[in-house]
Amino acid sequence: MKKPDFHFPPLLRKLKRGGPAITQPKDAGLVVAYTGIGRESRVIELGSGSGFMTVQLANVAKEVVSYEKRKEFLEIAKENVKRSGLKNVTFKHRDVFEGIDEKDGTWDLVLCDIPDSHKTVEMAHAALKKKGYLVGHCMQAEQAKALHLEAEKHFEEVFTIEGTVREYEVKEFGIRPKHFGLVYTAYLVFAQK
Amino acid sequence: MKKPDFHFPPLLRKLKRGGPAITQPKDAGLVVAYTGIGRESRVIELGSGSGFMTVQLANVAKEVVSYEKRKEFLEIAKENVKRSGLKNVTFKHRDVFEGIDEKDGTWDLVLCDIPDSHKTVEMAHAALKKKGYLVGHCMQAEQAKALHLEAEKHFEEVFTIEGTVREYEVKEFGIRPKHFGLVYTAYLVFAQK
Amino acid sequence: MKKPDFHFPPLLRKLKRGGPAITQPKDAGLVVAYTGIGRESRVIELGSGSGFMTVQLANVAKEVVSYEKRKEFLEIAKENVKRSGLKNVTFKHRDVFEGIDEKDGTWDLVLCDIPDSHKTVEMAHAALKKKGYLVGHCMQAEQAKALHLEAEKHFEEVFTIEGTVREYEVKEFGIRPKHFGLVYTAYLVFAQK
Amino acid sequence: MKKPDFHFPPLLRKLKRGGPAITQPKDAGLVVAYTGIGRESRVIELGSGSGFMTVQLANVAKEVVSYEKRKEFLEIAKENVKRSGLKNVTFKHRDVFEGIDEKDGTWDLVLCDIPDSHKTVEMAHAALKKKGYLVGHCMQAEQAKALHLEAEKHFEEVFTIEGTVREYEVKEFGIRPKHFGLVYTAYLVFAQK
Repeated sequence: MKKPDFHFPPLLRKLKRGGPAITQPKDAGLVVAYTGIGRESRVIELGSGSGFMTVQLANVAKEVVSYEKRKEFLEIAKENVKRSGLKNVTFKHRDVFEGIDEKDGTWDLVLCDIPDSHKTVEMAHAALKKKGYLVGHCMQAEQAKALHLEAEKHFEEVFTIEGTVREYEVKEFGIRPKHFGLVYTAYLVFAQK
Repeated sequence: MKKPDFHFPPLLRKLKRGGPAITQPKDAGLVVAYTGIGRESRVIELGSGSGFMTVQLANVAKEVVSYEKRKEFLEIAKENVKRSGLKNVTFKHRDVFEGIDEKDGTWDLVLCDIPDSHKTVEMAHAALKKKGYLVGHCMQAEQAKALHLEAEKHFEEVFTIEGTVREYEVKEFGIRPKHFGLVYTAYLVFAQK
Repeated sequence: MKKPDFHFPPLLRKLKRGGPAITQPKDAGLVVAYTGIGRESRVIELGSGSGFMTVQLANVAKEVVSYEKRKEFLEIAKENVKRSGLKNVTFKHRDVFEGIDEKDGTWDLVLCDIPDSHKTVEMAHAALKKKGYLVGHCMQAEQAKALHLEAEKHFEEVFTIEGTVREYEVKEFGIRPKHFGLVYTAYLVFAQK
Repeated sequence: MKKPDFHFPPLLRKLKRGGPAITQPKDAGLVVAYTGIGRESRVIELGSGSGFMTVQLANVAKEVVSYEKRKEFLEIAKENVKRSGLKNVTFKHRDVFEGIDEKDGTWDLVLCDIPDSHKTVEMAHAALKKKGYLVGHCMQAEQAKALHLEAEKHFEEVFTIEGTVREYEVKEFGIRPKHFGLVYTAYLVFAQK
């Protein structure tokens, strides 16, 4: 069974892989679309990881501040932002549980991709402007649940979704989904202030 | 069975519904993510329809030119762009099969949401810059197939996907997908020049 | 949004609805297929509920013994088996946590559709013959997890799946999935002795 | 990417693979469940193929007659039924388009897994008893559409579905779907007389 082709856009093909897990376009796309961030948006990322989400957010938003506590991940994420050519990302080498600098209620999106994401709810709430979103990218159902329930205590609206994409085999004689593929990446928890 | 909550971001909640079919955030998000369009991108839309896709693209891209042949749809799309507050959309009241003005090979994305989308392949190819994308939003499998096969004659890489989103019911006692929901909207055909 | 047509076979159309949740054909079918039960199989059901699963199992297997502690559910399940015309079901009005009679290691399948299904693992193990299956029909992810992990302590192979079915709209002009439908019913945990 | 474990029941683990495509338990299960066949049912199969569907049907039904025109497939299917130990299958080495023997309106199910399945509609109709089912196992969307539309001309109710199964990764620290897996096998068209 061959690994499926992820069909990355040119932006992502330049990036280095092999480090921490990468965020698939489908999940970055769902984050952009369900939060409505755009050219004027300002974004905080908790957990730079491979930098794949960082690059996809920075390509759309005006500004991204990205926190990462692990030095080796930070280097990968920085390298990937550099390769993307984007100039609107500020990295901060810090464990977010020591506190983040952005507490002014002016941010549009806090994207959280770290363990214990439910413990970032108050911090994210302080950073976000009214109607802004905290989004958690959660690997396990339990993590999504913990974040969802904690967010309900502080935010106006909370919902949890999961997106899947199927690719089709298209030939003159017929169209059908491909037999094998990527069937899961993450649960996404959205909380609107 | 209640209609599912689509969880629109503030951007889309301002828009008027009830006219032509609306493009869900999930599909707009997949288009943004798989083409890598961003703040600097220039987009052509063939078929404004309800304006929901127009607004979602214009919120991310630098500029959108949108064609619509039906006067009543054009009015709805214009009204919706007005409600969104976005200033970077140019509407053209024309049947695209009479030809489009953009033939200069400088555009990043041609989004096509009209019947007979396979007949727009050459027109889109002329408009797009190298590595730019034609994307078809197709309702029927046959339409996706026709576009996919025609695009393969002119473009470097073609793939067809379909995205689905499931929402979860999250309570203290348990997490599980909701029983009923939206299970299909469209096939998306991507062709990279 | 209309409730989707469940496309029940004649066997199920005779049954009474409106009581406890019914087991969809897709889930009964997955149980039959992944356990390989057939004409010669002997089945124990923990939790008769509406009798929908009872009837679907009894239609395939040689014999079904079905336990139900709630009198009102038992009456519904009995009525439904009567309506089906099947003669191979024995009902027992009992809380299974007081113990079941079948401890002889000769049964092919124990189907469990009650809360705290993870507490039935040892009881099921005693009832089953070598290579027989315990299957849990679990509503919440947590319930599936608890059963899966407990079963791993006693059974040879354990796997957890979820099945979804999409219906298609088929017209001369095109084929595509229907827009709305049933997207979730249950997690199914299979444990082979 | 490793091939996913199909979790076959003991019945299927005895069978030989490597010839024509095998029918997955999920699809055999959907056929059994949506047609309601059981211990008393009599089934005709058009296209024995690998014998995987034959065995799964014969394990549930009273009697199966299976047609196959290709000698090499017939040998594989016969070998697989022999391995299963089932004694209720009759094979016929014949191209079904030359006509089948069963025209008496007494059969419960005609399962069709051959190309041009839409051309078997009248033959199947003649064989089936009132309320019996023709089911087509179709690889391409076009094949499902052709069968669906042709069946609508002769049968009382026709519906087309597709089933997918996702397996879960279950650990003490969390539950989530596995990342990669089988995402498509076939469209299933059901037509009730």
